[in-house]
Amino acid sequence: MPRFLLTIQYDGTDFCGWQRQKELRTVQKCLEEALSALFEKPTQAVASGRTDAGVHAAAQAVHFDADTKIPADKIAFALNTALPPDLSALACKIVPDNFNARFFAKRKTYCYKLYYSPHRKPLLERGHAHTVIAPDLDKMREAADKIIGTRDFSCFLAAGSKVKDAVRTVFSLDVRQKPTDNGEIFEIYVCGNGFLYNMVRIIAGTLLYAGIGKISPQEVSEIIENRDRKRAGKTLPPNGLTLVGVEY
Amino acid sequence: MPRFLLTIQYDGTDFCGWQRQKELRTVQKCLEEALSALFEKPTQAVASGRTDAGVHAAAQAVHFDADTKIPADKIAFALNTALPPDLSALACKIVPDNFNARFFAKRKTYCYKLYYSPHRKPLLERGHAHTVIAPDLDKMREAADKIIGTRDFSCFLAAGSKVKDAVRTVFSLDVRQKPTDNGEIFEIYVCGNGFLYNMVRIIAGTLLYAGIGKISPQEVSEIIENRDRKRAGKTLPPNGLTLVGVEY
Repeated sequence: MPRFLLTIQYDGTDFCGWQRQKELRTVQKCLEEALSALFEKPTQAVASGRTDAGVHAAAQAVHFDADTKIPADKIAFALNTALPPDLSALACKIVPDNFNARFFAKRKTYCYKLYYSPHRKPLLERGHAHTVIAPDLDKMREAADKIIGTRDFSCFLAAGSKVKDAVRTVFSLDVRQKPTDNGEIFEIYVCGNGFLYNMVRIIAGTLLYAGIGKISPQEVSEIIENRDRKRAGKTLPPNGLTLVGVEY
Repeated sequence: MPRFLLTIQYDGTDFCGWQRQKELRTVQKCLEEALSALFEKPTQAVASGRTDAGVHAAAQAVHFDADTKIPADKIAFALNTALPPDLSALACKIVPDNFNARFFAKRKTYCYKLYYSPHRKPLLERGHAHTVIAPDLDKMREAADKIIGTRDFSCFLAAGSKVKDAVRTVFSLDVRQKPTDNGEIFEIYVCGNGFLYNMVRIIAGTLLYAGIGKISPQEVSEIIENRDRKRAGKTLPPNGLTLVGVEY
């Protein structure tokens, strides 16, 4: 049975994350229902990785197997007639039978968005975290530079979680300020070979701490070396996080 | 009783527009409830103009009267503890007793956002209209130039609506393509001294028609001259429209 690589986009606000959980509305559940209906056969979807409740995806990668006469480049159109408004298919292509969306992923890029304002901004709330203290862009960038590289990132692992090996590679970590919005929006782009549970949200919290002077950029190196989860920043809320893309 | 000018922001998705309507959830209803609770007295709010169901506001202007010891610059903070997540106060100041948010408005700026993509994009749907045909930016701009000025804009008035005087001044009308999003987002900024019912959404529809070659930019001048609502573009959906600001 041919294997397909599907690119999907979702607004995570009203999903209980990617992974199937009995009664809950998850991305996997909605997608598998649409795939199964389209191919008239129970069809499973394997994503590049889970996303948590509330986390968005601009381009999540998913593989599935199907015997179908629908040409690969028409599958996204067919699926979109069945998917809900907050989930859509963007592209589909055939891949080798041994391809695996999870294990073949070489690089993933996430974006964490923050806005600074004394007051809540409803037009930004859905996709950004809110800070009432203005962060310093240069300090955030200085702190970001300490994180880039191949390191044990235990300090950025959600408290209570365990992994055998906390070594990951962060290829790049850029902080951008959007000039179009009165300089109030900060976008943190991070590209890595994989991320620990909550790692991106904790990195964003740590850069915010550096930006508002709660820790110095230099301390970030110590925090990483000492695997010190407590001195790293808070886990920022899921609504600011978007999976931007997956490279194979 | 002192008069206050309040700036508010709202995500229009879940509101039935600005204006109070018995049982419906409107911006005016939510705001007046919060104002009345804060000042412990029924308090009415007058906006610069109504916005329709689904239309957003980055900075809507509103006046109200209140006898209060709360300093004007603290009122937004106090209100925000009582307003729902999709509505917030951004600023508040005292204005002269004769000030009127509706009648004193000199210029209003709206932004209509569109995205081009073969497929729906859930992350854009809330704030943008969708076109599956790629518009030509230059043609949209050429068409926009024909609209700028003081003219009878009956051609851009919602069918079935009547006004005594359809003359309005469009000070500027810019179409911008956002390079950060693979050039797929088009933002139409229009500034005028006032707008007819649905005028901005019909202008956006007309620029889209010009952009996809359904009408020529030259035809736009004829459509305006002939007050020809039928040849102008369709009224685009409300979710793409945002009231950006009001000048006094």
